[in-house]
Amino acid sequence: MGNGSSRDAGSVDKVTDELRSLADTRAVGARLPSTRDLQQRLGVGPVTVQRALARLVTEGVLVTRPGAGTFVSARRSARVGDTDWQQVALGASPVSTSGVDVLLAGAHSTGFQLGVGYFDATLRADSRLAAAASRAVRRPDAWSAPPAAGVPELRSWFGRQVGADPDQVLITPAAQGALSAVFRALLPAGSPVLFAVPTYPGALAVARSAGHVPVPVPTDADGIRPELLERALAATSARLLFLQPTFANPDGGVLAHARRREVLDICERAGAFILEDDFARWLGHGQVPPPPLWRDDDQGRVITVCSLTKILAPSLRIGAIVARGPVMTRLASMRQVDDSFVPMPLQHTAVEMVAGPGWSAQLRAASAALRTRMATLTAALATELPECSFANPRGGISVWLWLPRGTDDLAVATRAGRLGVTVAPGRYFVIGEQDVSYLRLCVAGIREPDIPTAVALLAEAVRASAGTTADRSFAG
Amino acid sequence: MGNGSSRDAGSVDKVTDELRSLADTRAVGARLPSTRDLQQRLGVGPVTVQRALARLVTEGVLVTRPGAGTFVSARRSARVGDTDWQQVALGASPVSTSGVDVLLAGAHSTGFQLGVGYFDATLRADSRLAAAASRAVRRPDAWSAPPAAGVPELRSWFGRQVGADPDQVLITPAAQGALSAVFRALLPAGSPVLFAVPTYPGALAVARSAGHVPVPVPTDADGIRPELLERALAATSARLLFLQPTFANPDGGVLAHARRREVLDICERAGAFILEDDFARWLGHGQVPPPPLWRDDDQGRVITVCSLTKILAPSLRIGAIVARGPVMTRLASMRQVDDSFVPMPLQHTAVEMVAGPGWSAQLRAASAALRTRMATLTAALATELPECSFANPRGGISVWLWLPRGTDDLAVATRAGRLGVTVAPGRYFVIGEQDVSYLRLCVAGIREPDIPTAVALLAEAVRASAGTTADRSFAG
Repeated sequence: MGNGSSRDAGSVDKVTDELRSLADTRAVGARLPSTRDLQQRLGVGPVTVQRALARLVTEGVLVTRPGAGTFVSARRSARVGDTDWQQVALGASPVSTSGVDVLLAGAHSTGFQLGVGYFDATLRADSRLAAAASRAVRRPDAWSAPPAAGVPELRSWFGRQVGADPDQVLITPAAQGALSAVFRALLPAGSPVLFAVPTYPGALAVARSAGHVPVPVPTDADGIRPELLERALAATSARLLFLQPTFANPDGGVLAHARRREVLDICERAGAFILEDDFARWLGHGQVPPPPLWRDDDQGRVITVCSLTKILAPSLRIGAIVARGPVMTRLASMRQVDDSFVPMPLQHTAVEMVAGPGWSAQLRAASAALRTRMATLTAALATELPECSFANPRGGISVWLWLPRGTDDLAVATRAGRLGVTVAPGRYFVIGEQDVSYLRLCVAGIREPDIPTAVALLAEAVRASAGTTADRSFAG
Repeated sequence: MGNGSSRDAGSVDKVTDELRSLADTRAVGARLPSTRDLQQRLGVGPVTVQRALARLVTEGVLVTRPGAGTFVSARRSARVGDTDWQQVALGASPVSTSGVDVLLAGAHSTGFQLGVGYFDATLRADSRLAAAASRAVRRPDAWSAPPAAGVPELRSWFGRQVGADPDQVLITPAAQGALSAVFRALLPAGSPVLFAVPTYPGALAVARSAGHVPVPVPTDADGIRPELLERALAATSARLLFLQPTFANPDGGVLAHARRREVLDICERAGAFILEDDFARWLGHGQVPPPPLWRDDDQGRVITVCSLTKILAPSLRIGAIVARGPVMTRLASMRQVDDSFVPMPLQHTAVEMVAGPGWSAQLRAASAALRTRMATLTAALATELPECSFANPRGGISVWLWLPRGTDDLAVATRAGRLGVTVAPGRYFVIGEQDVSYLRLCVAGIREPDIPTAVALLAEAVRASAGTTADRSFAG
């Protein structure tokens, strides 16, 4: 803090603080701007800058190399005390990433991207986002605390999409933050949870990390199998079913119209909630998707989660939980405990993006691109990998590829990675043992012209990995 | 989706979609702009607008009142199915807000604000935030996914503040998001956790909602009492102590220099972690605060949490977890499971705020204002409420006020609220039974000239609440 006793001493204090802050965000060894640049930048004279630099050299924050300039010095080397005691204190980990760490890391790998569920820059509305956000951050109330449940316009909009009133909507940090709150608010550790499989690893990670026990319920061409759902509920007394009725991740499946009522009735008889992850609401391929399961329910049976990150951008972390009845109070409490509230500027950015004239254009552009990319992908797979089978997705962003018997998913993913193609090993999308290996191939992050080359390289990796299932026992 | 078969039909589809989006974010009964305004806004002719409006009237989204205009129609009334089954399915709640919902709601109450820990607009750097953010949202990579642990410059900066390397830092959604991840990652449900009391309700809420059992360890003028800490560790075998060594919330206490080593040694003998909530690092009153406890530890004993929301703004939800050793891997996993990552634009906004020339000015302005406000508050309390006692805070934003015997904290808070003064009932900051009632009075959100009036009104509420402790058994 400046002592301010003399104007000059005060300004040296000030400049010292500012140069320290500057150094703090630079890498070790980074060169500082020249003294002249610093004078202009900070609006002070050469003497003040020199004195401030001298202080920071004394403090060990900076080093000067005559003739070369002033540099950020190496931090005091991290102390190397013994941390082995932690392993005893930590014991078995309650945390399970279920592969989300691998999938997120894949988002940053270069080359052909068949791995991640986020749009590449060509499909994102970044420039409209920048414009909307720079208005949102300038609102008078932009940086204060919003209502904990979210800003009214955004709650109203999500409500309209699902068919709910604004007070039945909670704004969340995207779908992951929503799922995280719902699982932990509904069930204590040790509870069984049913998952229609294959399923989304992010949901499995949340449930496992909350101490829940995931139980698989297989699906067929019409979605989750009712007779197996009924049996699983009876066998486990589970009070929660996780379901993606529309364009499921990873296989793009849709819950058949005839089964919607049946699934609701089975869960009603068992007194169980349905957590509907409606992540692909805006990821259809042209035809209008079926309405959320929420619309078929008047008992508060269905809790629906939505998100804008897929259709707009990864860093627009805005989603919603839609629920009715006593459970809503509990969910609202959990959200406040988790992270207080979602930043106001992001919420107002989202409002402008969905209310503005560009929203329907974005929807059309995305579904057109996904349709084209998916057609190219499935055609290339049929040509390059006739030994693999898959169901044509009804919508969404991914294909669920069955590998030939004896071919290990992790071995293929690793080889493909070396060839410059990122894919997601299927093991993260299933629960328990499988006698077949799978890959999830995603078209969100790859441009259409690159798809044939990517699939050709993938085919090379698949063939080179024949007979690798033995790896499974080690890697799985 | 537009069928695009004819240019006109396509544009009507488009305009219909856009007007629907517009209506979705408006309240029921809101009036739409005039047809002429809509023509200009959407750049289409009157016929197209009229056709689109007609469609939405048919759909029931809009209603027209001849001569008055077009309005957003009432939503289909929410179905009123029976949701009583939920109470059976939900059972006992695993969620405990421990008062954070009350405190957050208080942030929105008008009148004199002695309740919340967030700065009022006069202390916030909103205009600099707006400028920094509008640059951050325009960066080429602004809306893509950042590294899961955070952007390097920000990890580097937080590391420098605490005395850690960048790879020992995880960027989080403020302190609440950090605490939420640490408690759940470290301990399974049912574990005991020690808290130096009085303590921060947000941390209690996280621990209780994770199924942990909070155990109080009393403090005195020098901070947590070592002999009681030792006894509590022996009695519970707890593996975690939650501590605010610097300017604790609510009482502004500081862990005495002589006790720092003692507390570390006691926890070492017990094989326990220390979670250091360093929330007030930049909320001193002029003198330099003691360094984080992290700096005294070379064993990975101390996990430190920091946040920028208090010193900058509530909606800049940026904080950090600083840790070393095997625990870091687990914490990084938990963070990814919780909400994937912190939005990139917020992280770059934070980098510019702390690296730019305004940072040290903000620190000086904040500590000067807090010093003045605190002096006025303590003087007013001595004059208006001689029957209440309190320790002068060494720093931070709040005073911990002991109410006269027989006076109930909730009764006082309620009466004060009716008189236009928001205060926090002390019960949310303690664990288990107390034979005294307290209030937390916070100066972050109230301008200095308003403090004497606020305290005079509070004194009125305290006197009017004499002999209300009986309420406690109902309200507590």
